[in-house]
Amino acid sequence: MCDVLKKVVINVGGMRHETYMDTLKSLPGTRLAKLIDHDLTEFFFDRHPGVFSNVLNYYRTGKLHCPTDVCGLLFEEELGFWEVDEAAVEPCCWITFCQHSDAEEALAAFGPSDSNVHHNEEFPDRFDVEDNPPNSQSCFKRWKPKIWALFDNPFSSMVAKVIAFVSLVFILLSITAFCLETHQNFHTMENRTKIVMEGNHTEEVTYYEIVNNPALTMVEGVCVVWFIFEFLVRFTCCPNMLEFVKNILNIIDFVAILPFLLELGLSGNALGFLRVLRFVTILRIFKLTRHMVGIRVLVYTLKASVQEFCLLAVSLTIGILIFSTLLYYAEHLEADHDEHHISNIPMGFWWAVVTMTTVGYGDIIPITYSGMVVGALCALAGILTIAMPVLVIVNNFRLYYSLAIAQQKLPKKKKRQHL
Amino acid sequence: MCDVLKKVVINVGGMRHETYMDTLKSLPGTRLAKLIDHDLTEFFFDRHPGVFSNVLNYYRTGKLHCPTDVCGLLFEEELGFWEVDEAAVEPCCWITFCQHSDAEEALAAFGPSDSNVHHNEEFPDRFDVEDNPPNSQSCFKRWKPKIWALFDNPFSSMVAKVIAFVSLVFILLSITAFCLETHQNFHTMENRTKIVMEGNHTEEVTYYEIVNNPALTMVEGVCVVWFIFEFLVRFTCCPNMLEFVKNILNIIDFVAILPFLLELGLSGNALGFLRVLRFVTILRIFKLTRHMVGIRVLVYTLKASVQEFCLLAVSLTIGILIFSTLLYYAEHLEADHDEHHISNIPMGFWWAVVTMTTVGYGDIIPITYSGMVVGALCALAGILTIAMPVLVIVNNFRLYYSLAIAQQKLPKKKKRQHL
Amino acid sequence: MCDVLKKVVINVGGMRHETYMDTLKSLPGTRLAKLIDHDLTEFFFDRHPGVFSNVLNYYRTGKLHCPTDVCGLLFEEELGFWEVDEAAVEPCCWITFCQHSDAEEALAAFGPSDSNVHHNEEFPDRFDVEDNPPNSQSCFKRWKPKIWALFDNPFSSMVAKVIAFVSLVFILLSITAFCLETHQNFHTMENRTKIVMEGNHTEEVTYYEIVNNPALTMVEGVCVVWFIFEFLVRFTCCPNMLEFVKNILNIIDFVAILPFLLELGLSGNALGFLRVLRFVTILRIFKLTRHMVGIRVLVYTLKASVQEFCLLAVSLTIGILIFSTLLYYAEHLEADHDEHHISNIPMGFWWAVVTMTTVGYGDIIPITYSGMVVGALCALAGILTIAMPVLVIVNNFRLYYSLAIAQQKLPKKKKRQHL
Amino acid sequence: MCDVLKKVVINVGGMRHETYMDTLKSLPGTRLAKLIDHDLTEFFFDRHPGVFSNVLNYYRTGKLHCPTDVCGLLFEEELGFWEVDEAAVEPCCWITFCQHSDAEEALAAFGPSDSNVHHNEEFPDRFDVEDNPPNSQSCFKRWKPKIWALFDNPFSSMVAKVIAFVSLVFILLSITAFCLETHQNFHTMENRTKIVMEGNHTEEVTYYEIVNNPALTMVEGVCVVWFIFEFLVRFTCCPNMLEFVKNILNIIDFVAILPFLLELGLSGNALGFLRVLRFVTILRIFKLTRHMVGIRVLVYTLKASVQEFCLLAVSLTIGILIFSTLLYYAEHLEADHDEHHISNIPMGFWWAVVTMTTVGYGDIIPITYSGMVVGALCALAGILTIAMPVLVIVNNFRLYYSLAIAQQKLPKKKKRQHL
Ligand SMILES: [K+]
Ligand SMILES: [K+]
Repeated sequence: MCDVLKKVVINVGGMRHETYMDTLKSLPGTRLAKLIDHDLTEFFFDRHPGVFSNVLNYYRTGKLHCPTDVCGLLFEEELGFWEVDEAAVEPCCWITFCQHSDAEEALAAFGPSDSNVHHNEEFPDRFDVEDNPPNSQSCFKRWKPKIWALFDNPFSSMVAKVIAFVSLVFILLSITAFCLETHQNFHTMENRTKIVMEGNHTEEVTYYEIVNNPALTMVEGVCVVWFIFEFLVRFTCCPNMLEFVKNILNIIDFVAILPFLLELGLSGNALGFLRVLRFVTILRIFKLTRHMVGIRVLVYTLKASVQEFCLLAVSLTIGILIFSTLLYYAEHLEADHDEHHISNIPMGFWWAVVTMTTVGYGDIIPITYSGMVVGALCALAGILTIAMPVLVIVNNFRLYYSLAIAQQKLPKKKKRQHL
Repeated sequence: MCDVLKKVVINVGGMRHETYMDTLKSLPGTRLAKLIDHDLTEFFFDRHPGVFSNVLNYYRTGKLHCPTDVCGLLFEEELGFWEVDEAAVEPCCWITFCQHSDAEEALAAFGPSDSNVHHNEEFPDRFDVEDNPPNSQSCFKRWKPKIWALFDNPFSSMVAKVIAFVSLVFILLSITAFCLETHQNFHTMENRTKIVMEGNHTEEVTYYEIVNNPALTMVEGVCVVWFIFEFLVRFTCCPNMLEFVKNILNIIDFVAILPFLLELGLSGNALGFLRVLRFVTILRIFKLTRHMVGIRVLVYTLKASVQEFCLLAVSLTIGILIFSTLLYYAEHLEADHDEHHISNIPMGFWWAVVTMTTVGYGDIIPITYSGMVVGALCALAGILTIAMPVLVIVNNFRLYYSLAIAQQKLPKKKKRQHL
Repeated sequence: MCDVLKKVVINVGGMRHETYMDTLKSLPGTRLAKLIDHDLTEFFFDRHPGVFSNVLNYYRTGKLHCPTDVCGLLFEEELGFWEVDEAAVEPCCWITFCQHSDAEEALAAFGPSDSNVHHNEEFPDRFDVEDNPPNSQSCFKRWKPKIWALFDNPFSSMVAKVIAFVSLVFILLSITAFCLETHQNFHTMENRTKIVMEGNHTEEVTYYEIVNNPALTMVEGVCVVWFIFEFLVRFTCCPNMLEFVKNILNIIDFVAILPFLLELGLSGNALGFLRVLRFVTILRIFKLTRHMVGIRVLVYTLKASVQEFCLLAVSLTIGILIFSTLLYYAEHLEADHDEHHISNIPMGFWWAVVTMTTVGYGDIIPITYSGMVVGALCALAGILTIAMPVLVIVNNFRLYYSLAIAQQKLPKKKKRQHL
Repeated sequence: MCDVLKKVVINVGGMRHETYMDTLKSLPGTRLAKLIDHDLTEFFFDRHPGVFSNVLNYYRTGKLHCPTDVCGLLFEEELGFWEVDEAAVEPCCWITFCQHSDAEEALAAFGPSDSNVHHNEEFPDRFDVEDNPPNSQSCFKRWKPKIWALFDNPFSSMVAKVIAFVSLVFILLSITAFCLETHQNFHTMENRTKIVMEGNHTEEVTYYEIVNNPALTMVEGVCVVWFIFEFLVRFTCCPNMLEFVKNILNIIDFVAILPFLLELGLSGNALGFLRVLRFVTILRIFKLTRHMVGIRVLVYTLKASVQEFCLLAVSLTIGILIFSTLLYYAEHLEADHDEHHISNIPMGFWWAVVTMTTVGYGDIIPITYSGMVVGALCALAGILTIAMPVLVIVNNFRLYYSLAIAQQKLPKKKKRQHL
């Protein structure tokens, strides 16, 4: 058919690909284009034979499609060898091409979080222990890494496990105390007398003050003592001060101690402001999640989905604004209703959020027919608006989670090999 | 086994496919069928070797299946080369065959929306600046594109960024003022006297009128002045008048200015009607979304899912009609209840919507046993009815969104190459 | 390495597969096993070369895995050619193997529903028009198919479109009238006097009766007249009486006419019973959905998901039983609450349904702490219980829907080819 | 290009792969590395030709990627043959590599549950019937397996079906009676007199006692008699006593009989405690699910998703704690509201659960603006928090369910082959 053209054989890993010399010229600068200068008609390359079909096809058709029978990273590597620009991948294959590198990135992010397990093995590097002068300086330097391991890595020894358990108990205790304290059953009313200067004679005024249950206060005190102790030990023994200070969990730890100390110092004054600060106590719950794979994946997903959260926020905001305005006008246009549930647009925001999330408390309800139509549209729009970004986020989570699970399932050998 | 038949070798890109001459005759009119006229027993084609297996198999078995190890578009191209009708693809492979072209279509749709970024580079074409006579006409023509860039593309320069920010602030301000205006805290009651002619003597009637907060009115005024200014500048400097007028965002911009002007002109009369027109103010929020990829994908998804929305509307309507009727009869058949929550079928529509979307305000509740059964079925039917089209829409969104993200991630080179 | 063994070359479509004679013996009765009797060492088969790798691998390893780079149906066909039992497919590949035949099945089901479009072309077959005696019998026989097309296929002609539109208007009218009739605004109270025999003297008792709005009654009457006319015409002209009678939409049509006729005949008596029968009116809405692809796919999905619905019903029933019992005991164990919201287990069923579907009307709410724990578990269990079968159903829908859409998108040629 | 290097040809199943000797040295200890010692330049292996490309590529690039055109288990097998460590699989391909073995595992788990069907065929093994002495011992031993089949496998014979149906009726009866018993319509008040010793004179006190409906009690009695009979027969005839005792359904069966017996024995005393125990009655419903594939898959999914449930529990707990605390402070900071819906943090737990699951009963609602913001965030956070683990669980279910359905669909031959 086309014998006039000069044929060339490219033997890739044993598979003979044939094409015309002219075809190779279509992409100058690539490894294959450079073959033209040689006088040979057969070349051998020790590469993957199947993937090369797709690379060579790029020369033939001018379109670079990804093969879907091999991993995207493998194709990327082959593209690199053949000196073909990976940016030439056709749009229809972009997702295929990118997804594997996403997975690689996510796995790299999960890896370091696993660091607690490796602390022990990395002591020499991280503590800069000088091995040469064995009995120099105080014994503190020798004990430091051991104490750190005790308090930081519950899997390092039996004692570490006990300490972790004690810490867990104290965290749960302090949170429980914090929650119960707000319950009226734990409040006692106390008569207080206050001397008020009125004009030029003093008067004694009796009033009631809510006093916290002393038992709960004591429990909190004991917890705080433990937390202070633990924090100080960890702070003193941490291998890297800067890393310790930057860790969000350590910051929570520190801030959660403050309110109790301040309250003690101020002895009952300025309680209102302090109460709010004490909210940090509840964040101690995050300390329990350090060793859970699922939570780490969840946090990684949230971090990786910032763009989707923005989208969710923006689209929800638009939805809320439009539907609350629509409802306001729909309800107020029908003049025969006086007792509108929705008296202004800001109140409509709350209704729109509650409806769009399908929570539907029922405190604000459209009562006119046009309002009901708006309500129905709002609920449907809400389902769609929320479902779209949420599905993207949730699917990211599913991908990362299955990666993390696959990582856990792979034989132990792998891990040793990695270290 | 079958030596009597004449064999033919088709060398495709170096891979030798063998078949019988008779096999090739099964699809007359295609490129391979034309080979029969030649006397040769070996042919060479410079095409993808792997995909040809599937094409040749169509001759052998009479069924054209898609390979799933290459992109659908690649297969489409090969089918074109081999002159095989792509409509012959078996139904089981339709989805595989179509999905990549969907992706291509979606990407093409996202592309042009990115136009803001390229405006600058496209000036020569879009403004028809005659390069030859350099100092002809007014300086306005020379400044026009620059002013347009300032107001239309916030990424074009530092000043453009400032203008974009100012515009953003005014949009937020006007929306905030619009929402707060409806709040009773910003209402002041004013005594007004009206002279009423009753019979032949005039009477002075005193009544209260709700007057908007003057501060809010002023804020709105300032905003409107800015919007008028911005609109006029943009209108004067736009490169293409027709395109500008057709743009939905510009129409919103224009319509949102009207109510305030009209109110000013009519000075307090016909407020009721104007209030409704002022609803357009809220649509200004859409101007903020011009530069968000997610929102553009969302809008594209909504446009591309018209059919699914119809399905959602129709199936919801059927569900609402049936369940509201069922509930009405269920509640009214049990005679011992007098205070039915649902007194007629149209009211049942509202109940059905609220139940099917699982919002469940609780204002209308079935109170008979049969009504409760209807309620339970309604909730389940609603979940299914809504979940089906919504999942299709949401999955479309997910596909388009991952395409858009992949598009963003691809190296910059690609973009330059495209332009 | 193993030269003692006798090698055999199997050339499949040009690709030379090599193996040992002994390997082929492992599956007696198959096409390859029969080769052993031949003395040749090379055989040629005109089949798909790639798929054969997987077939031959079954001989080597004793495990039959599906390739995922070709369609499952193609693999099935190849298995048939090589006389390998398809039941030998490994469990891990079952889903891959089955999914394509599912798709084929679904597409076959959507096809016939499309029959309206083809009616015209199928006249000769379906009406058994004897072509030979051209001017025999009444002209009715000649007109029959045309009238049928007018009333059954809106796409057949302009007049058919008009008739379809009229029919649509009447359906909407009758449904609207039906719904509004229950509204109090359309009720008028009429004084009626009834002569009651009490002992031996008659007494005239005055009472009020709710009388339907005469306008609505008239609208309904007109609609029913049209429906009767349409039904009679369609019934007389239908090509196949049995098929017509079996069609669910025609049955609805017939039954929906009855209540009005009966009411007319009985003139106001036995209204209570008839009211319920009139519920069928609402089912006329289904007539509007005949020509919507989405609804047909939805109905097909519901039919194909009977098993999943059973699962949903059973798991929901179990959940309802367990959580209502749990709540009943939880609420009644705490003795200090007298005004329980839930006074018996059957009432708990309603609560459990409302909570599991996350509708949450709020009419029944747990008020004890243990009840609240049960409530929280119930909501979570409900989400899971409902999500599992619903996701399967919804995914089936998504698959079928994308098939139907792909079917619509494929070039028209295909359709012509099919007919 | 590189002729100095020694080339080697590896013929795998007919496909000639070529590489350099040096390449094979990169992975010492594997089957290919051992080839170096031989002096040959061509080797033949009777293995899958396509998969070997990917194995050989590991030698070339040092990275082991999974092919996606064959089943993961097939690749695993090939890796085993080539003596390549499967732990070397690149992270990006972990999911691909693992998913098929997951499927295999799940199918293995569904298999044995299907055991009821095979009981008959397995009699010889499970009952240890000595075949040699045919007429030894009592006839009980001969009847035992037959009776067991009657009561355990409804598909074994016609009589078994009847027994299964009777059992079903009794289960439904007992559950119905149990539920109705709590309804006030089935309560009768009975006057009771009690002689109270007060000081040294006795007094007769009349009081009302709620007495269960005697009809219901009788129904329950009959049911319990059947259950005792059924349990005893099954217990006596079971092939393996230990297995019988360990079966959760049998334990439920046994425990569900106890309360009625105890009540009978104690004749009306200690009813309060026994009522709770009677809750087990409701668990009999699980006996109905033994033969449903869907429920078995559901239970398997729940068992296999323990990790995801932990994640759900932990993330929900964190969410509840944080949002209830936030709401408490948000509501209490705005001092102008006195009638807070939420008076303490534990009450906020309930609110947070109800909001996060989007049930939204409406009993506790934020009433301050800051509280509303917290509420909106809580609803959104709840949707995400719940959607993430639930999607993973639900997707597991979908996978397992489609496996189970595929298992059912595969031809019967398969099953026979398996046994
Ligand atoms: K609700
Ligand atoms: K709700």
